[in-house]
Amino acid sequence: MNDLFNELEEKIQYKFKNRNLLKIALTHSSYANEHNLENNERMEFLGDAVLELSVSKYLYNNDKHDEGILTKTRAKLVCEQALNIYASKFDFAKYIFLGHGEEATGGRTRKAIIADALEALLGAIFLDSDFNTVCNIVYELFIPYIDLALENKDYKSILQEKLQSEKRNIRYEIVSEEGMPNDKTFEAVVYMDDIIMGRGIGKSKKEAEMASAKNALEKEAR
Amino acid sequence: MNDLFNELEEKIQYKFKNRNLLKIALTHSSYANEHNLENNERMEFLGDAVLELSVSKYLYNNDKHDEGILTKTRAKLVCEQALNIYASKFDFAKYIFLGHGEEATGGRTRKAIIADALEALLGAIFLDSDFNTVCNIVYELFIPYIDLALENKDYKSILQEKLQSEKRNIRYEIVSEEGMPNDKTFEAVVYMDDIIMGRGIGKSKKEAEMASAKNALEKEAR
Repeated sequence: MNDLFNELEEKIQYKFKNRNLLKIALTHSSYANEHNLENNERMEFLGDAVLELSVSKYLYNNDKHDEGILTKTRAKLVCEQALNIYASKFDFAKYIFLGHGEEATGGRTRKAIIADALEALLGAIFLDSDFNTVCNIVYELFIPYIDLALENKDYKSILQEKLQSEKRNIRYEIVSEEGMPNDKTFEAVVYMDDIIMGRGIGKSKKEAEMASAKNALEKEAR
Repeated sequence: MNDLFNELEEKIQYKFKNRNLLKIALTHSSYANEHNLENNERMEFLGDAVLELSVSKYLYNNDKHDEGILTKTRAKLVCEQALNIYASKFDFAKYIFLGHGEEATGGRTRKAIIADALEALLGAIFLDSDFNTVCNIVYELFIPYIDLALENKDYKSILQEKLQSEKRNIRYEIVSEEGMPNDKTFEAVVYMDDIIMGRGIGKSKKEAEMASAKNALEKEAR
């Protein structure tokens, strides 16, 4: 168990003073019930608010949109799906303690279990240190994907606005798809009327389209 | 304007390094529009998350209920109505900058305006200092009322559980009501079957009932 803790601490670049907090954060209720331990649900309650404030601070400082847009963007960045994206980047699911039944029925791939445990991990770091420390860890672990989400939104809307004012039509097309089912790469092109304006790749169709929009804008700027 | 800022800083026991942050926090969009200034809406977005984490931390440390109950209690403690209770305790509404039209149509008593500005104030303190500082201010300003909410919930549920196990019926009755419309005091009694078990007073009917439940439990304990 200590090896797993060391490995996880190495990945998140944080060493717990009180490892019991880390253990609780990783303890799903199914494991807690089997071993008569405290589960991670109360810590998830706390971590949820830690994540919310970390992301809010980041958006306040880096996104100049009004409050309505910020609220929508925040909801997107702290939702179950987003948490699963962040978690997948450091293979977080393997560290969760699951009961036998839950393990047997695929609990380790269940999005709610993974998202809740990741929030609990943030709650545990917060209790073990302070807000600034956990906020910086959120930024280290999540920012590349937060930036992507923000960037994507900007590039698509910028391109859309730009081309609408010129009364041109745009459409996106996925032109290739490579790799294993759980690790695909897509390539997209964006057409203006019938001319290819940009190309981009990404780990999802949407990401690839966004990258192609960015590429088109970069070409325009030159 | 500086006199008002000094007075507010004195009340919240926090001196801004950057008073421009305080000014933005107090600037409602109606005033911002009239004077071409930044309004407090983005800061409210941030302050909302500051309040959420402050209250979450408090509940995590002081309320041993499970996550479902904590989530419900948190929602109650950060809602518009709760924010208006906190704000009324230090006459916060008077410090908000309102446009002429908004002022003329009663904006200074509008619950949403007051709640939003109070959240923005927390956002401003957070930006000017750090999470610990603003969290302690939340505790100083709000805790007496947070505790009341928690206490109330406990007394009512404790009495309810206690009497249900004894198969007794309870009912509450408001027996008096005194004072001006905006500053009333209520008195409640709680009956077990047809016997008065406790009496209590409060600033609302609910508060009075809660106090009577507490009184009933205290009598039981003797």
